[in-house]
This record gives sequence, C-alpha cells and structure tokens, in this order.
Amino acid sequence: MSFVTNRMKLAIEWAHCDPAGIVFNPRFFEFFDTGTWHLFETALGVPKQQLTKTYKIWGIPLVDAGADFRIPLAFGEDAEMESTVSEFRRSSFDVVHRILKGDKVAIEGKETRVWTGKDPANPERIRATPIPDEVIAKFKRA
Amino acid sequence: MSFVTNRMKLAIEWAHCDPAGIVFNPRFFEFFDTGTWHLFETALGVPKQQLTKTYKIWGIPLVDAGADFRIPLAFGEDAEMESTVSEFRRSSFDVVHRILKGDKVAIEGKETRVWTGKDPANPERIRATPIPDEVIAKFKRA
Amino acid sequence: MSFVTNRMKLAIEWAHCDPAGIVFNPRFFEFFDTGTWHLFETALGVPKQQLTKTYKIWGIPLVDAGADFRIPLAFGEDAEMESTVSEFRRSSFDVVHRILKGDKVAIEGKETRVWTGKDPANPERIRATPIPDEVIAKFKRA
Amino acid sequence: MSFVTNRMKLAIEWAHCDPAGIVFNPRFFEFFDTGTWHLFETALGVPKQQLTKTYKIWGIPLVDAGADFRIPLAFGEDAEMESTVSEFRRSSFDVVHRILKGDKVAIEGKETRVWTGKDPANPERIRATPIPDEVIAKFKRA
Repeated sequence: MSFVTNRMKLAIEWAHCDPAGIVFNPRFFEFFDTGTWHLFETALGVPKQQLTKTYKIWGIPLVDAGADFRIPLAFGEDAEMESTVSEFRRSSFDVVHRILKGDKVAIEGKETRVWTGKDPANPERIRATPIPDEVIAKFKRA
Repeated sequence: MSFVTNRMKLAIEWAHCDPAGIVFNPRFFEFFDTGTWHLFETALGVPKQQLTKTYKIWGIPLVDAGADFRIPLAFGEDAEMESTVSEFRRSSFDVVHRILKGDKVAIEGKETRVWTGKDPANPERIRATPIPDEVIAKFKRA
Repeated sequence: MSFVTNRMKLAIEWAHCDPAGIVFNPRFFEFFDTGTWHLFETALGVPKQQLTKTYKIWGIPLVDAGADFRIPLAFGEDAEMESTVSEFRRSSFDVVHRILKGDKVAIEGKETRVWTGKDPANPERIRATPIPDEVIAKFKRA
Repeated sequence: MSFVTNRMKLAIEWAHCDPAGIVFNPRFFEFFDTGTWHLFETALGVPKQQLTKTYKIWGIPLVDAGADFRIPLAFGEDAEMESTVSEFRRSSFDVVHRILKGDKVAIEGKETRVWTGKDPANPERIRATPIPDEVIAKFKRA
C-alpha cells in the first residue's frame, strides 16, 4: 500500500540563495512546510487554509524536522518536490519530502507533525488528538 | 509604445504569512525581486542566472524600492504579479510590479535599479554603466 | 519638539545576504518592522506583544513602505538602526528608519501604518481608528 | 574534555512568527546557521566573514540538519542559544544548538558540516578537506 504523493515544481530564485550562490538551507524547510500543506490539500480535497476548520483542529505543528543535503541547488535551476506521508501513528505522522534535480534526489527531508486539537477541558490549551480514520483513509485512496 | 510585461502566478503559502494571518510585507519585496529577474529573462531571452555573464555586468542592484499595500493577501489565496519597466534612463531603470487579486490591484510596488559594471580602472570597484541600446530594444519588442 | 527614537544594533549575518554577498533588500523591511515594534515598546513602556491587547486594537498594519539603499551592508558588518515617528495623523503615522554604518546613513526607510481597531458594528471587520492622545503624548516624552 | 560553546541571545520578533503566532520552523535553521558562524568566530578568534580566507577554504557547507521542537517560542519571548561542536571527524563535524527558554531546552538542533576546499587539480570543483589540527585545537582551548 502506498499513500498519496504531492508533486510540485520548485524554481530556484535569487531570493532563495546565499552568498555561496546556492539555496540557503532554511529555505528547504520552507519548501517542506509548503509541500505538507499541498499534500494535505491534495489528499483530503480541502483547501489548505480550511484544513483546521474542516477537521476542528488547532493545527498540525512540527515536532521534529531533518534533512540530508546531497546536491546543492543554484539560482535558475528547476527542481521538483515529492511529498508523501511515510507513516501515520495514533496522533502523529511523518512526511517525507524528496527534492529531485533531474532524476536524482538532491535533498531529502522528513517532518514529524502532530494532529493537534484544543483541550475540551481548557480551550486555552492544545493537545495531541487521534487522527481520524477518515483522514488516513483519504491518504490511502491513490 | 509599451514595454514587455512579465506575468506570474503567486500562491500565498503559510510560509509567507505573519501572526495576523496575512503576507508579511518583506515577502512582497521578495516577490518583486523575483518578478524583475523573470521580466529580464522574458524580455531578453536569456536565462536569468546568465544575465550578468551575457551582458558582462556586475548586476542590477536596487537603489530604491517602495510599495503600496491596498488589499492584504491571506494564506491560501491566489494572485498574479505583472512586472514591467516603467522607465529606462541612461544607466538606471524603474520596474513596476502590480499584484492582482482577481481584477483589483492589491499591492503596487516600484523598484529602481542600476545597470552596474565593473570599473575598468579598478575591477574591485563597481559603477553605473550605460544600459545598452540592444537591451532597451528588446524590452520594446512586444 | 521631537519624538522618541529607538536605537538597536544590527549584526549582518550570512542568513541576511544574497549571492552578491550583501544584505538582500527584503531583509531591510524585516529590520524596519522590528524597529517599529521596538520603538512602540520603548515609547509606550508596554511589551511589544501586548500592544494590541493594551490599547484594544487589532494592530498597526502597514499601508506603505519604501527605502533608499545608499550603501550596501555585507556579511560580518555591524550597523545601528534608529527608528522614530516622523508624523502622527488622526489614525495613521509614519515611521522613519535610518540604518547607520559608522556615521553614514546606509539605508533610509519609511513606513506608513494605520492604528486599526475592530469595527464595533461588525467585529469581523477592521477599520482605521483615531490614535489616542495618550499614545501620542508618550512619544513626545523624550 | 569539552569544546568551546558560543552563547547568544535570541529575541523573538514579529518577523519570525507564523499565523499560529509562534516561530516558523525555518527560522530556527537560520538561527542555527548564525550560531555556527558565531561559534567559529568565538573559537578561532577570526571575524566570521574572514573564515574562508584565513583558512583558504571554500566554506563549511551543511550536509545534514535536524531539530527537535519541544517548546514553541512566541512573539516577544526571549531565549538563549548555546552552540558547540559535539564531534570533529577527519573533514566533517557536528554542531549542536540548544535554544533555551529559561532553564529548559525549547529546541535542540544539530548540523553536520564539511570543511571544504577547492580541488587543487580543478579549482572549479570543491571537495572535503581534512580539518587542520590547529583549528580543532582552538575549539579545545576553553
């Protein structure tokens, strides 16, 4: 079984690059964040800005992120990012992002996020909440 | 007579937004920078990362920038940016960027940049250089 | 009469610089934004994150920004930013930011912001609101 | 034996925060990058922008980065970042960054970087180069 994958083009702009002329690493974590939102939109069929409202959650905050930088990307280069969930757990999940330059994986990233709701006993607080089965089912549809 | 206009889609991502939930203003200046590079690529038919090499210049540094923020853009909204040169002078030029939300101008920006070469008497130094006629001619082609 | 000025050190980091090795212009608009928040904290004596709550406003959104880039700043350089209100109007005001490199103004920026509250008739909407006299008085105290 | 630690204050600004009102995760990777440059300046006694020239290297590019986000940081909060090398290998090294909120580790990050020189056989290419003993010795001095 495999989960839905979101693919998006990445055009490397001057704005993304550092004095070495290559993408400054924090930009890749921005790309990963965008990849996750787009993946959820693709899988769930809900506009990304309505995700929290639709599922009555606070959000999907990041608790862990990492990346392997294998091939640098420079100003003017084009790449493609593939984002997919590699594992759903009770209330957390991992998203893997592969940024491809041609047919090579240039950067591989991983995010761990938590399905987070408001605490019914205290709406000022947030807490991990079980991911609904219907959400996971939609990621399996492809 | 009018100059070439570059049009590009802007998708507003979570990454662009501030605690008020709208695009944080410095991001618009990033968009303008990207718009200028794309405009030069479109007008001159030279990949943007080869502009300096092709024309043997140091770059097109910004000396002045400004923007009018009329309608905020929020996470998940789509917009379009139109970028065009409004005036060429001897060695400097103005680029106007209009970010449209539907048929309304949400943000209007202006950049003044200088066509800058290395000083032949001292390659460590840079200085304003006349914009070649062939460059201006290509912006008029459309 | 003059208004309170906030002064803060700016250390130029690798993170701020572009492939030309100098500060990428949108970063200056970030610095200006930070300068304005610090100026309000300094003038009003209220922690910046409590400004909206203290004055029961929605915020102080930007409607216009501009900058003059006279001297570039490079990785490893130190600068100082002076921020001051140049004019208060009924419900809007201008903040001038001068970034100094030694005793020279390297960059001069200006922001126009609006004192913005929630519309009592419709809390979903925001609108310009008169700046309280007590706020303006505190900017004059210095 | 322990290595030199660099400590720097982090003030969380509006500019760093996302629509959830907390620091947007890529900003932490910016902070880590800045922490590494400051650590090298502190340990080696060389201004950070002269590191490559002083040691005749191309740079210290990142090949791996990761972070654990335990406690969010919000607009107006103050933190402190401690950066230290956790291990030197032949031509690569790990830097650990701990961002403290009061006496708690709010975020822990790790970067793996490579001491990188130009290939003597082909100055267009870069390659991993042994970290000089004198560099490692200076990290041990504290």
